[in-house]
Amino acid sequence: MTDLKEGVCLSAFWYSHEQCCWTSNETTFDDRDKCPKWQKWSELLVNQSEGASAYILNYFLYIMWALSFAFLAVSLVRVFAPYACGSGIPEIKTILSGFIIRGYLGKWTLLIKTVTLVLVVSSGLSLGKEGPLVHVACCCGNFFSSLFSKYSKNEGKRREVLSAAAAAGVSVAFGAPIGGVLFSLEEVSYYFPLKTLWRSFFAALVAAFTLRSINPFGNSRLVLFYVEYHTPWYMAELFPFILLGVFGGLWGTLFIRCNIAWCRRRKTTKLGKYPVLEVITVTAITAIIAYPNPYTRRSTSELISELFNDCGALESSQLCDYINDPNMTRPVDDIPDRPAGFGVYTAMWQLALALIFKIIITIFTFGMKIPSGLFIPSMAVGAMAGRMVGIGVEQLAYHHHDWIIFRNWCRPGADCVTPGLYAMVGAAACLGGVTRMTVSLVVIMFELTGGLEYIVPLMAAAVTSKWVADAFGKEGIYEAHIHLNGYPFLDAKDEFTHRTLATDVMRPRRGEPPLSVLTQGSMTVEDVETLIKETDYNGFPVVVSKDSERLIGFAQRRELILAIKNARQRQDGVVSNSIMYFTEDPPELPANSPHPLKLRRILNLSPFTVTDHTPMETVVDIFRKLGLRQCLVTRSGRLLGIITKKDVLRHMAQMANQDPESIMFN
Amino acid sequence: MTDLKEGVCLSAFWYSHEQCCWTSNETTFDDRDKCPKWQKWSELLVNQSEGASAYILNYFLYIMWALSFAFLAVSLVRVFAPYACGSGIPEIKTILSGFIIRGYLGKWTLLIKTVTLVLVVSSGLSLGKEGPLVHVACCCGNFFSSLFSKYSKNEGKRREVLSAAAAAGVSVAFGAPIGGVLFSLEEVSYYFPLKTLWRSFFAALVAAFTLRSINPFGNSRLVLFYVEYHTPWYMAELFPFILLGVFGGLWGTLFIRCNIAWCRRRKTTKLGKYPVLEVITVTAITAIIAYPNPYTRRSTSELISELFNDCGALESSQLCDYINDPNMTRPVDDIPDRPAGFGVYTAMWQLALALIFKIIITIFTFGMKIPSGLFIPSMAVGAMAGRMVGIGVEQLAYHHHDWIIFRNWCRPGADCVTPGLYAMVGAAACLGGVTRMTVSLVVIMFELTGGLEYIVPLMAAAVTSKWVADAFGKEGIYEAHIHLNGYPFLDAKDEFTHRTLATDVMRPRRGEPPLSVLTQGSMTVEDVETLIKETDYNGFPVVVSKDSERLIGFAQRRELILAIKNARQRQDGVVSNSIMYFTEDPPELPANSPHPLKLRRILNLSPFTVTDHTPMETVVDIFRKLGLRQCLVTRSGRLLGIITKKDVLRHMAQMANQDPESIMFN
Repeated sequence: MTDLKEGVCLSAFWYSHEQCCWTSNETTFDDRDKCPKWQKWSELLVNQSEGASAYILNYFLYIMWALSFAFLAVSLVRVFAPYACGSGIPEIKTILSGFIIRGYLGKWTLLIKTVTLVLVVSSGLSLGKEGPLVHVACCCGNFFSSLFSKYSKNEGKRREVLSAAAAAGVSVAFGAPIGGVLFSLEEVSYYFPLKTLWRSFFAALVAAFTLRSINPFGNSRLVLFYVEYHTPWYMAELFPFILLGVFGGLWGTLFIRCNIAWCRRRKTTKLGKYPVLEVITVTAITAIIAYPNPYTRRSTSELISELFNDCGALESSQLCDYINDPNMTRPVDDIPDRPAGFGVYTAMWQLALALIFKIIITIFTFGMKIPSGLFIPSMAVGAMAGRMVGIGVEQLAYHHHDWIIFRNWCRPGADCVTPGLYAMVGAAACLGGVTRMTVSLVVIMFELTGGLEYIVPLMAAAVTSKWVADAFGKEGIYEAHIHLNGYPFLDAKDEFTHRTLATDVMRPRRGEPPLSVLTQGSMTVEDVETLIKETDYNGFPVVVSKDSERLIGFAQRRELILAIKNARQRQDGVVSNSIMYFTEDPPELPANSPHPLKLRRILNLSPFTVTDHTPMETVVDIFRKLGLRQCLVTRSGRLLGIITKKDVLRHMAQMANQDPESIMFN
Repeated sequence: MTDLKEGVCLSAFWYSHEQCCWTSNETTFDDRDKCPKWQKWSELLVNQSEGASAYILNYFLYIMWALSFAFLAVSLVRVFAPYACGSGIPEIKTILSGFIIRGYLGKWTLLIKTVTLVLVVSSGLSLGKEGPLVHVACCCGNFFSSLFSKYSKNEGKRREVLSAAAAAGVSVAFGAPIGGVLFSLEEVSYYFPLKTLWRSFFAALVAAFTLRSINPFGNSRLVLFYVEYHTPWYMAELFPFILLGVFGGLWGTLFIRCNIAWCRRRKTTKLGKYPVLEVITVTAITAIIAYPNPYTRRSTSELISELFNDCGALESSQLCDYINDPNMTRPVDDIPDRPAGFGVYTAMWQLALALIFKIIITIFTFGMKIPSGLFIPSMAVGAMAGRMVGIGVEQLAYHHHDWIIFRNWCRPGADCVTPGLYAMVGAAACLGGVTRMTVSLVVIMFELTGGLEYIVPLMAAAVTSKWVADAFGKEGIYEAHIHLNGYPFLDAKDEFTHRTLATDVMRPRRGEPPLSVLTQGSMTVEDVETLIKETDYNGFPVVVSKDSERLIGFAQRRELILAIKNARQRQDGVVSNSIMYFTEDPPELPANSPHPLKLRRILNLSPFTVTDHTPMETVVDIFRKLGLRQCLVTRSGRLLGIITKKDVLRHMAQMANQDPESIMFN
């Protein structure tokens, strides 16, 4: 569908340009691109392939196709599944941390996200399919776990399935099974026991295996951007690699700040009320600016693939237009460094313009009401910058091979600099700057490219990029979006080092009315019904008596309401005056008193407690590791208060000098 | 030193055979092996290189060298650092789970283990250096963390350094930085937060970088066994790969059972009293049997390297002795399948004998009182089996390419089966069977070999091997040794699914004397000193009074003793009759009463508590995730009992129908 914007295959309209010309008999590379079965729109409609009017017609139709794809996508999302927009990773992180967003992983979301993802990628917008594929995979995981009661009834088990699904999603998106498992571990999952690690591994194995059987890239390889470089890297090259890491970190910071500022503006101003118009406008601008530049006109993954490639002898790309030494007769895969030709200089200009355009447009694209991933645009930005740096270093080394830094490893006639490697390192650095991944990033990159020899450059760039980006702000793009949307997410990465105690955080504070509690054997049904009506707490601690306040358990609001309703309907003698007993054996009552209501079975006898002197550092640790929603605070068995996850989040925000009211469920 | 067993380099005695002949001018492969500077012992001593007497002399000297290396190693270990023996991974796992083994990570252990590791590997015993290198790296980590008070004073931080050190150790051992991080995560570490993940990643990066700068393999590559295969794998080959997985699982089970049985015998019978004799005997047997067979005579890593290799046109190895078609003129790296020659058949027999020998001798070698790793012997067993299966499949496909299973992908004259790949898969399967690694195994294997294309076969073999091995017993070799030695290790991988409650596990049981507790303001110094003398508990719960038993805190035995000692020495008026107060403000006492002792500052006011109704599943989860050593059990604030880690381990053993008394600190 991406190629449909430019032309159509006469033998079968669903073929891409490349597939269409595969069957062609032309054998040289140039001819294959111009095979007769593939017709540009101008050729088909007005029988012209060159000239200004043909160009304008093609330009116009390119924009029209892009607009119709984007309009269809945004309409489908708005009408059928509003949750299908965005990358979905911030929400999945929140869901895996224990929060429930109903319908987020539903069947409609799955269906609509799959369809619209195809449309938006084809429309040429600056976005990728990889992040949304994680969401799609989690929808599948949720669907399958709803089929088995073992998983549908146990929230924890369901989350393990979702962790594995996220791994399988990345495995399929990039053809990177191990990278997928690590992505799920490092970026998506909240609680990732070893058991889940190895189940995710199995899911990713099956995903990779299925992918290989389908063989979508037609080359029997799992990897998306397969590269083969012919030279090792040299120690002196670490300097430009680290520079690329710095660039990646700066790009990550810039992108996150600008994107969040823009998304906040969208949330708070009228802009958010016209999502369709916004998508149409951005698509139109993208298409208008993208068409004239060959590096933005094509699909972004093709662009990345070309930038990663080493220039072999058979390469016809403009980026490989070097001036060859006519006397040279060498084996084809060991071409020495050569001076750049006219094509390379043109390409450099076009790449520079494409880079600026990508940087700006991606800020406005990510966060619109369509499925949109960040991996591919970030990688494209990094690959463009990296390739330009690489060509620069290569030409410097060629023209100045007597400089001290080049003298040791770059003699004349040697193949010492591989610009494609710089593109790969730049892509890793930019992706790292935006997402703050480290290990999973490096694994994904070398699974993507097959470039196992280049772990150290990739690691150096990833680490530098993370450092630089972290210096300007700790949050990656997903955490920033979680924060922007106010999801109750307790980040496992932040360290809590303040010396506050549980007593400083718990409710009620000094001067506030006392905690709403139930007593084990003195409240009537009516008392409890009033309490339920007047408050909206999720549950109530149960104490021995109002005086002693010794805690015996915790009763869920939902179960209390249900138990009272059932008792009033079915149990004769239970009236508003009946006394509710949470004790094991209610005492014998006088004959004329109303029938008592025994509720011990709904009482949670092991509520989680801490003492009021417990340091908040420990409390935060317990909340994180045990995934609690609330925790009771006691002193010598006396109930003093309660700490909820919200309280913990508010306190952490306060300690970090942020507005505590920004933490809320909205 | 390994080559010193066979001969000596005249130009420099510390050169290995290969290094010695690098400088030689002979260019053909056969001649290089026989360069004049390298002399066998028989050539040097009696000027004979062929013949029976020369063979016997070489044989004899081979055994003598092996014995002297092994004797030196075992003596050094016995005299200077008894903790330097074994692989060290079970102990490091235990240490990282919170148990302290004094001196295990000390400087002497570091020094002696480094030296003896070189000796035992050179002695030709069936062991590897990779596991012990993890121990060595952890010793370094421990040493460095002792230099900074931030790490030396905080046990948790020190464990994080050790986790990162383990990653760096594997990174250096295999040249596999990412595999190292994953090994630390999957196999070694107990608690591995994301912060540690990314610090380990940095440590592994620096380790890999340093390794590359030193360039130990002389090929600018990080990887130990670099391979390049020229053909992809085919779907039908999954069947033999899975068979290799089954073999790996069976070998893992057999090895663990036999090795544990032998080690138990060593622990419980007189055998354990003669460690030097044991090492000498095993070394002698190894050397005597190993010398005649070329596949056991050389070092195990060379053997693995040869087994992994694809047969190129220049390969002179016996394993590549195929019958060439004289009419064939093809490029060198795309050799079609050929019928096996005499050399291959000889190699098959020798490999089969070597395989049986390795399987048996490794069982007796691992666990002796010398440093010994399991990675390399396991991989060798798998690689030998894999190569034999690979050659079998290759010959089957060559002679029967009209069979249905071969017809689709193996036409005559095609290069369809790569026996080296089978060796790689077999090595992964055997390593997986013994250690039960999954993700880290696959990552290490492809970092080792550079064979990124072969993730799916490796994953399939690893998963099959784990399944088969788990069917016979859940424990990997490291867990089995932890169990054998009775270390208090709470495995994070086991699921606890029984429906027991905290009240069933806590002490005191019904009928036992009540818990030894302190009261907050009624016990005298003498009472407490008696209690300390009569019991050996690590600490005592503090309650309001013996009647109410309301818990207010927990006091450590060590701090109590210290506080009483200090008070008696320095505080005037503190005598045996003085009352100890744990309250905030001790009451005013009559003038003539002895001076009270205030101890609130040593009281832990936030001891961890659960109620008696808490399911043990939750308790086990809390112990694991929070790394507790004990936990108090209360009901409505009244102290009922205590659960220690030992109680939890005993209960888990009981539930699994094991002898609970096997869990102890010995």
